[in-house]
Amino acid sequence: MRYKIIIEYDGSGYIGFQKQPTVKAKSVEEVLELALFKLTQKKIKIFVSGRTDAGVHALGQVIHFDLEKEFAPERILMGLNNYLRSEETSVICCSQVSAEFHARFSAKMRHYRYLLINRKAPLTLQKNRAWHVAKKLDISAMKAGADFLIGEHDFSSFRDSDCQASSPIRTMQKIVIEEKIGGIAGEISIEFSAKSFLHHMVRNIVGTLVLVGLGKIQPEEIKKILQLRDRTKSGPNAPACGLYFLGVDY
Amino acid sequence: MRYKIIIEYDGSGYIGFQKQPTVKAKSVEEVLELALFKLTQKKIKIFVSGRTDAGVHALGQVIHFDLEKEFAPERILMGLNNYLRSEETSVICCSQVSAEFHARFSAKMRHYRYLLINRKAPLTLQKNRAWHVAKKLDISAMKAGADFLIGEHDFSSFRDSDCQASSPIRTMQKIVIEEKIGGIAGEISIEFSAKSFLHHMVRNIVGTLVLVGLGKIQPEEIKKILQLRDRTKSGPNAPACGLYFLGVDY
Repeated sequence: MRYKIIIEYDGSGYIGFQKQPTVKAKSVEEVLELALFKLTQKKIKIFVSGRTDAGVHALGQVIHFDLEKEFAPERILMGLNNYLRSEETSVICCSQVSAEFHARFSAKMRHYRYLLINRKAPLTLQKNRAWHVAKKLDISAMKAGADFLIGEHDFSSFRDSDCQASSPIRTMQKIVIEEKIGGIAGEISIEFSAKSFLHHMVRNIVGTLVLVGLGKIQPEEIKKILQLRDRTKSGPNAPACGLYFLGVDY
Repeated sequence: MRYKIIIEYDGSGYIGFQKQPTVKAKSVEEVLELALFKLTQKKIKIFVSGRTDAGVHALGQVIHFDLEKEFAPERILMGLNNYLRSEETSVICCSQVSAEFHARFSAKMRHYRYLLINRKAPLTLQKNRAWHVAKKLDISAMKAGADFLIGEHDFSSFRDSDCQASSPIRTMQKIVIEEKIGGIAGEISIEFSAKSFLHHMVRNIVGTLVLVGLGKIQPEEIKKILQLRDRTKSGPNAPACGLYFLGVDY
C-alpha cells in the first residue's frame, strides 16, 4: 500500500531534510522515519519530492512510502502527528495513492517562495524566517532581471558545485515578485515555479536578484551571467532561512 | 518636538504593551522607554495608539513622544533599534509630527487581524502566532455571522468586564474573512477595522464567530447576542497569540 503525505516544517532546528550519519543534529527525514516506526513497528523508507537544506522551511513538502499492512489515512495523519508533537514537523494530509505514484519522479511542477524583508528595522516575528536586507531594493529592476530567467536555460551559473543533477538545463515556468503579501513592513515575496531545480538554484538566483535590486549589477547582466555558465559570475547564495518549499503539482 | 514611531513586536514574550509594576515580566512600553532613555538620557513618557494584551503581536503599532532637543528621525530610528537589538520589538519608521498629533486621540481608524489555522495538523511555523482550531469551520457561516456586526452597535456582549471605555457603542467599519493568505494550510485571516475597539472586543468576536463556524450557533444569533448586551451570551475570548495590531489611519 502506497501513501502520500504532505508535511510542513520550520527548518530552523534541522540540518535539512536528509539524514547525515556523521552529524549529530536532527533531520526531518529522521524524525519522520522515527514517527513511522512508532506507528507501524517497522523500519519504513520514505521518498521525498525535493530535499531541502538546513534552515529551509516547507509549507507543502510531499513524501511517499509503502506499508505492508493497510492503515486508514486518517490514522496515519493522527498517529504521525501524535509522535511528532515535540517536533517542528507536522503532517497536513495523508492519502492512499497508486503504486505508480512517486513523490519525486511524478512531480510535474515544484513551487518555492523566497521571503525578503527590505527595511532598516531588525526583524521580530520573521526572525529566522526571512532574509533581512537593510539597503533599499529596486523592485522593478529585480522584476526586469528575473524576466531573463524565464524559459529553458542552462542554469550552471546558479548551480552549487555539489549539485548532482546530470544536466544543468532547467525550465523556469514563473517568477512572481510581490510586495507586502502579509502586511509586514518591507516584505518581498519571490515565488519560483519549475518542474525541477538544481541544488541551491533558488537561493543563488535570489542572491543575484538582490545585487540587481541594490543597483550593483544591471537587470540585463542576468542574461550574460546565464550565458557564462560559471557559478563565480552570479551573486551570493541567499540565506536558507528565507526559503520555503511551497508545494508540488502532480 | 513631537515624534511618531511605528513599531512591530512579537508579543509572545511580553506581558502586554503596558507596564505593570507588580509583575516581573517585561512590557513593550518598558523596553521602549528604556531604549529612549539610553538614546536621550531623559525619562520620556510615550503615548500609544492602542494597548495590546499579553501575547498579542503588532505589525504597525503607533506611538508618539516629545523630546526637548531636536533629533533627526533617522537617528531615533537607528538609535532605538540599536538599544532594542536583544528585544522582540523593532522600530519600523520615525517622523517628526506637529504638536497636535496624538497617537491615541488623532486615530481615525484602527486595523486588527486575527489569524486562525483550521486543520487537524499541529502548528509549526505559526506556533504562538495563530489560534489552532482542529475541527472544520464553515467559513460562509462565519462571514454571514460577521455581517451582523458591521455598523454602529452597542458591543456590550463582546466587552471585557475590565473595559474602561465610557461607552459600549462602537462602529465596525469592516470585517474581511479570507482563506490561505500566506500559503499556510488551513489559514483563515479575519481583519477588523473600526475607529476604536472595546477591551477584548476583537478576541470575543472571534471566539463567537468560531462557534458559528463550528455550527454551535447560527449566524443570525450574532444579532441576538448584540441585542442582549450581556458578555455571558457571546463566545469565549479567543487566544491572544492569534491577534495582530495591523495599523492606524490618521
